[in-house]
Amino acid sequence: MGNTLGEKFKLTVAGESHGPAIIAIVDGCPSNLDIKLEDIQKELDRRKPGQSRITTERREEDKVKILSGIFEGKTLRTSITLIVYNKAIDSNKYIPIKDKFRPGHADYTYFTKYGIRDWRGGGFASGRVTVAMVAGGAIAKRVLQDYGIKIIGYVKEIGNIKAENIDYNEIEKNSVRCPDKNKAREMEEKILAVKAEGDSIGGLVEVVAKGVPAGLGEPRFEGLKGQLSNAFYSMGAVTCVEFGAGHKAKNMLGSEFNDQMYSENGRIRHYTNNAGGILGGISNGEDIITRVTIKPTPSIAKQQKTVDIYGNNVKIKIQGEHDPCICPRAVPVIESVTAIVLTDFLLQK
Amino acid sequence: MGNTLGEKFKLTVAGESHGPAIIAIVDGCPSNLDIKLEDIQKELDRRKPGQSRITTERREEDKVKILSGIFEGKTLRTSITLIVYNKAIDSNKYIPIKDKFRPGHADYTYFTKYGIRDWRGGGFASGRVTVAMVAGGAIAKRVLQDYGIKIIGYVKEIGNIKAENIDYNEIEKNSVRCPDKNKAREMEEKILAVKAEGDSIGGLVEVVAKGVPAGLGEPRFEGLKGQLSNAFYSMGAVTCVEFGAGHKAKNMLGSEFNDQMYSENGRIRHYTNNAGGILGGISNGEDIITRVTIKPTPSIAKQQKTVDIYGNNVKIKIQGEHDPCICPRAVPVIESVTAIVLTDFLLQK
Amino acid sequence: MGNTLGEKFKLTVAGESHGPAIIAIVDGCPSNLDIKLEDIQKELDRRKPGQSRITTERREEDKVKILSGIFEGKTLRTSITLIVYNKAIDSNKYIPIKDKFRPGHADYTYFTKYGIRDWRGGGFASGRVTVAMVAGGAIAKRVLQDYGIKIIGYVKEIGNIKAENIDYNEIEKNSVRCPDKNKAREMEEKILAVKAEGDSIGGLVEVVAKGVPAGLGEPRFEGLKGQLSNAFYSMGAVTCVEFGAGHKAKNMLGSEFNDQMYSENGRIRHYTNNAGGILGGISNGEDIITRVTIKPTPSIAKQQKTVDIYGNNVKIKIQGEHDPCICPRAVPVIESVTAIVLTDFLLQK
Amino acid sequence: MGNTLGEKFKLTVAGESHGPAIIAIVDGCPSNLDIKLEDIQKELDRRKPGQSRITTERREEDKVKILSGIFEGKTLRTSITLIVYNKAIDSNKYIPIKDKFRPGHADYTYFTKYGIRDWRGGGFASGRVTVAMVAGGAIAKRVLQDYGIKIIGYVKEIGNIKAENIDYNEIEKNSVRCPDKNKAREMEEKILAVKAEGDSIGGLVEVVAKGVPAGLGEPRFEGLKGQLSNAFYSMGAVTCVEFGAGHKAKNMLGSEFNDQMYSENGRIRHYTNNAGGILGGISNGEDIITRVTIKPTPSIAKQQKTVDIYGNNVKIKIQGEHDPCICPRAVPVIESVTAIVLTDFLLQK
Repeated sequence: MGNTLGEKFKLTVAGESHGPAIIAIVDGCPSNLDIKLEDIQKELDRRKPGQSRITTERREEDKVKILSGIFEGKTLRTSITLIVYNKAIDSNKYIPIKDKFRPGHADYTYFTKYGIRDWRGGGFASGRVTVAMVAGGAIAKRVLQDYGIKIIGYVKEIGNIKAENIDYNEIEKNSVRCPDKNKAREMEEKILAVKAEGDSIGGLVEVVAKGVPAGLGEPRFEGLKGQLSNAFYSMGAVTCVEFGAGHKAKNMLGSEFNDQMYSENGRIRHYTNNAGGILGGISNGEDIITRVTIKPTPSIAKQQKTVDIYGNNVKIKIQGEHDPCICPRAVPVIESVTAIVLTDFLLQK
Repeated sequence: MGNTLGEKFKLTVAGESHGPAIIAIVDGCPSNLDIKLEDIQKELDRRKPGQSRITTERREEDKVKILSGIFEGKTLRTSITLIVYNKAIDSNKYIPIKDKFRPGHADYTYFTKYGIRDWRGGGFASGRVTVAMVAGGAIAKRVLQDYGIKIIGYVKEIGNIKAENIDYNEIEKNSVRCPDKNKAREMEEKILAVKAEGDSIGGLVEVVAKGVPAGLGEPRFEGLKGQLSNAFYSMGAVTCVEFGAGHKAKNMLGSEFNDQMYSENGRIRHYTNNAGGILGGISNGEDIITRVTIKPTPSIAKQQKTVDIYGNNVKIKIQGEHDPCICPRAVPVIESVTAIVLTDFLLQK
Repeated sequence: MGNTLGEKFKLTVAGESHGPAIIAIVDGCPSNLDIKLEDIQKELDRRKPGQSRITTERREEDKVKILSGIFEGKTLRTSITLIVYNKAIDSNKYIPIKDKFRPGHADYTYFTKYGIRDWRGGGFASGRVTVAMVAGGAIAKRVLQDYGIKIIGYVKEIGNIKAENIDYNEIEKNSVRCPDKNKAREMEEKILAVKAEGDSIGGLVEVVAKGVPAGLGEPRFEGLKGQLSNAFYSMGAVTCVEFGAGHKAKNMLGSEFNDQMYSENGRIRHYTNNAGGILGGISNGEDIITRVTIKPTPSIAKQQKTVDIYGNNVKIKIQGEHDPCICPRAVPVIESVTAIVLTDFLLQK
Repeated sequence: MGNTLGEKFKLTVAGESHGPAIIAIVDGCPSNLDIKLEDIQKELDRRKPGQSRITTERREEDKVKILSGIFEGKTLRTSITLIVYNKAIDSNKYIPIKDKFRPGHADYTYFTKYGIRDWRGGGFASGRVTVAMVAGGAIAKRVLQDYGIKIIGYVKEIGNIKAENIDYNEIEKNSVRCPDKNKAREMEEKILAVKAEGDSIGGLVEVVAKGVPAGLGEPRFEGLKGQLSNAFYSMGAVTCVEFGAGHKAKNMLGSEFNDQMYSENGRIRHYTNNAGGILGGISNGEDIITRVTIKPTPSIAKQQKTVDIYGNNVKIKIQGEHDPCICPRAVPVIESVTAIVLTDFLLQK
């Protein structure tokens, strides 16, 4: 279970890291929408491994094909099936550790729950399945485009390095996807240094949704914050999800935090945006601002203590290609689930 | 929509702040469980207003009655209906501000979405509906008890004051529900000072679930972290949800963050708990640790700028009883939804 | 589980035959709709026991009260809670049979599933819970009214007596709710004869939804026929659900069955309506026609063979008031769930 | 929407009649189950076109491949993806009628709802998508096998010819899938005669589930009857769904219909099975018996009156291969959804 996101616009993901393919089924996309294969491909290229020195070296082309739902270039409103065949599915590097639980991975929790182990690179729990999220997200972004809604994601912090001058135009110009070009350079160096040590590092991704009208969302257990955070936490690497002032709200006074309001040309606006654009689960017309903390990638070359499937205390060293910092590649994934959740609400979840 | 939490063990809430009653329907509770009315009442008493100097002065007895699902002291496994009649439903204090959107509340977002306004104290969006969450949570706690699972919540920070010596026995001994008795006193003073200014203050609540077996949860979009955070965000006051190392993970190395493992007497354990007890959406057998940031209560006596329902720029001052810090009363609510989510997974969500 | 019908317009039912109250929560009703208590009451009066010589003699006033969701006469779009307190909850007549499974009832299946027995008149499985369906259905009918959709239900057959001259104006004029006044008299006599023998009899209820626009419904597993039939089968007494030509389709040729089409004043019509207004799960603009077979009420005064909860072979005789034919009172229930399902689709399920 | 059946064991279908492939994703299958590709293939062969003189002549091999969820011959409990590539996807025969709504098909209802037309043989609404149901059903049957549950389906009536001597061993020996070999011959002749006229004919399929333990199902809106009938009605050709005595219950007395009970060797049994094995939505331990009426296939060679997408009154003649009676090929589909629904309940829906 847990493979479907959304209700009125829903993404179902399938496939495994080392199986023949990753599949995304998008159901509920409005009809008569022109969707171009290259737009989906472009998003997948932002997520794909091997795109720069600071990501994993696994080689995948991640070419997407359409199996259903689009006829003569237009969506039929029936379910859209997208498939990406896996290429680099040599599982040999996993053989030496096939009986060992990798610390920080879901190896042990899955094994305990299901009593079976697909030791080939995380299998179904692998970050590789985010391919399907990005493919589905590309369709959601296309839907949002017609509503004038745009999702912008970027890396805001790596280690203790924080972006300060936010320039959206810089994001895709550097390998870190940082909107501050000077900090981007520092971050890249930091990541390479960590990589050289066989280690990894965490970071913070910020996503802004612009153009969301007031009134989107639902109360209580289907609120925008909760549904977005649930979507973010689908990535095993996420450890914290904040909105607006987020973490800092614990030190604020009501008179500081409350976003006071005014009316301007018939539109209701707020002087500040500590709420991150959401009140009572529903958008207030300001930018939706969310920040997602990403833990350091669990696969590291350093020796670690662990246990094997027979219960023995053992040591583990994870060889081969690593991703020293998942943040840059997580950006399109986080954007994608944001887009899916917003589309779901727009289409009357 | 959005009034139901859970699938196999599910809570549906209904009622309004100033309507005749708050209702909780719990569906999926196992049969033949002895549930005592006083156990539910005890939890409600922890949440009820007017329990100390630092909470709101609204007077409610919050006496709960059972309308279905329990026969001769035992659960029937049919749905359990609980009702709490509202007493203090004098809405007069809201008349002067009935046309004004209160900053920080959901007044404007609801009005925009639904085109109608229940101005009587937040109505359906009111924190008062958490009565139903606590009532439902009491039943979930009873289910968990038979599995040896215990949920402990407390206030960890108020403003810049942080609990340091964590002693669970102190929690219910002070009005702040802080496990550090010295800090509790400081926090109480801080809250009273803020109250004297007609202002409010935020804080941080930590919840620990002890005794959760490894293997609880589901992958991806139905993971434990995501489902818990969705439940927490049902409270409009929540701005950040973290698990384990949470917010700090952005500065950590993989070699620091990864919880290395060992086997002890046939049980697999971890040397650290940065994961907060959850990997890949599934519990790993360690304590589940989560922290929820609570914004300052939006109702303050200070004058604020806002807009009325006709679009005019106006000023607002919210008179009458206020809750200068919602954190102490939020503790049982956060515990309750934690209990409901865990019970839902235990019963095979 | 199983207490909620619908997704975008949803009814949750709670309560037991011999508990303090029956509760209906309707979520998703559009805002700003004027709903009158007397309109809900009028529907409940059509369902209530003791309304004529041919129904059960249990005495219930079935007075409904509103607990939430309606403010100053208008719906808030928040959930509407309706409550009906039970009056005639003397359970004494059930004491002699409290350990025996009544044939044709769900006594044994519930006991097997849950391991506990609420012997007071069917408890949660009781037909009395249809009070909540009718209360919720009244709200759905109010929503449909604004769309020009009307639901008309009636008894078409009792035993071998079949209505032939269908006159909707006759339906509420006779105690059988039969649109053919001559046949109504025959049916009434038949029911009274059966009653005199301490027996019961089955029948057929037909429901017509008029004014449903083409294009309502969803494909495949959420089709109109499937969702309606699932709603009908929520009544334990239903044994067959047909649409349009229904049962007779097995003997028909394609050239007879296919509803050929024509265009008239810009509207597409069909020469016949063998499809019952639904093709591929979606309405085609003709009347939706469905027929529901109702089994004879299981409670009869005649002696029957059965088993007790200890596994002994025993005899049972069910004393007290019986309903010799549930069909007339089932009409408003079947109309109600039809209204709920159609409203759910209209509101973009 | 509407492409997913089930909650704890769920099938998601995708693909189109004339697209590149049909896809089935089965989620929730228990782990460590050995599933053989040939068992899935065997079921698909029972459904595939061209298997006898009395079915359509469309040529499809319907070879299934596994894309995920099975590793080293065992299920991982992660989602199982099955794909069947379409071969005979020459859409040319549909060109002459691409602008005309075929009577009895969902052409018009889909076009009205979605505003776009995939004219290639029904597209997504095509019966071809039942390939995915049968593939998923094969996995459900495998799960049920370990519980000792067996699903047996057959054609009981075609036109006015009714099977009388039921011998399960005969079912797969004749092309009609009729358990009465003499009647099978008559049915086959009837179908061929109808085919020769360019017409089609309806029928009745009966499905028996043997070995279902008492206590399976849920009350009310998630009852066994309702969930099964919803699954059956996913096939556009279904017009009536009955359980047990079904349609005949309308003429029965309570004293005839009630299945009286007895205890035998510690097991509770019923003297008759008018309830079809289900009471109050829950199984009673007897065979589950359901009958599904199938309308005559809408595609016929005879000339019919219809309307085109521009609103003109036109004539239509559907050329090429037709299925004069869908019943024999519907048998595995109906068995499959029965298996899926029962598995879903067994796995604790």
